[in-house]
Amino acid sequence: MPDVTPPADVVVLVSGSGTLLQALIDASLDPAYGVRIVAVGADREDIEGLRRAERAGIETFVCRVRDFPDRGAWDEALAAEIASRSPDFVVTAGFMKILGPETLRDRTILNTHPALLPSFPGAHAVRDALAHGVRVTGTTAHLVDAGVDTGPILAQRAVEVREDDTEETLHERIKVQERELLVDLVGRLGRDGSTPPGR
Amino acid sequence: MPDVTPPADVVVLVSGSGTLLQALIDASLDPAYGVRIVAVGADREDIEGLRRAERAGIETFVCRVRDFPDRGAWDEALAAEIASRSPDFVVTAGFMKILGPETLRDRTILNTHPALLPSFPGAHAVRDALAHGVRVTGTTAHLVDAGVDTGPILAQRAVEVREDDTEETLHERIKVQERELLVDLVGRLGRDGSTPPGR
Repeated sequence: MPDVTPPADVVVLVSGSGTLLQALIDASLDPAYGVRIVAVGADREDIEGLRRAERAGIETFVCRVRDFPDRGAWDEALAAEIASRSPDFVVTAGFMKILGPETLRDRTILNTHPALLPSFPGAHAVRDALAHGVRVTGTTAHLVDAGVDTGPILAQRAVEVREDDTEETLHERIKVQERELLVDLVGRLGRDGSTPPGR
Repeated sequence: MPDVTPPADVVVLVSGSGTLLQALIDASLDPAYGVRIVAVGADREDIEGLRRAERAGIETFVCRVRDFPDRGAWDEALAAEIASRSPDFVVTAGFMKILGPETLRDRTILNTHPALLPSFPGAHAVRDALAHGVRVTGTTAHLVDAGVDTGPILAQRAVEVREDDTEETLHERIKVQERELLVDLVGRLGRDGSTPPGR
């Protein structure tokens, strides 16, 4: 865990509508939350996540893979964008790209996932959980490493699957828990410089 | 799901202390529970699970793998023991052997597992969950198939992992949920001929 003095400077990475980002923006309006979002980065243009940041007066940047000769160059550019803001830590909030070694290097990066890892990693966690027929799923906050949803688990919350759930209804209830979990964890990390003690 | 007229006749298979069996025995003392345990089988002699059955006046049988020339012959003998009691369904309650094709054939067999499957199948689920660092684990009731904890999931309950949990303390809390889950599910199956609707 990083050495953090509140308020912690945080960079948030998004790929879509930015509802997790909005929860962090809302929480950070309270100085007691201990977190300042210094920039929001995205891997695509023209997404609601970027507009949410702009409406909140937060600096944004975009790093598109297609603008670089290869994934390695994209990784270096993203790492440089993040480094230029000197964040205490980074949050991937619905960011749909695997991070490269330069972005990961010496950096604390938090992610949330809409399943109880190690069950159902990957991009279709809610659909996969329904297809498997589980009766309990949930959400996991974890540190990001080079794998797909394989980093150390920081916190989890369970969500019951209902008989009449569709992917949409279940995902909605998971997202409620995911937002609370992320806001709680980012705030702890910002204020205390640590998350709930790991195992 | 089998066609059951209450009270349902049930055979329970055990390998050890039989705490899950005891929960079923206690529940079945109430006629409204809708389940009659017609026999308790084990894969070893001289275990507390068998003594619990005997104390409750329930018939017992033992099928030890070592008493048969091979696993197939053991499977046939176990299937014959079960068939001779004509149960409506079978419950494996801490039974530590993989069932063979003759025992599985045309038979509804319920099992519980001390983890939220598909996470942590196998014989060391609680230890594996702790080693992985999950913050939420639980218990799963499922139908038994030829795999290791791979059958269709019927019900699950979440159990939070505490910071100071050891394998023993966590397993104790999971077992409480596991007993309730199993007693509830076996009762539903006995009374209604069905479990909570599967997906």
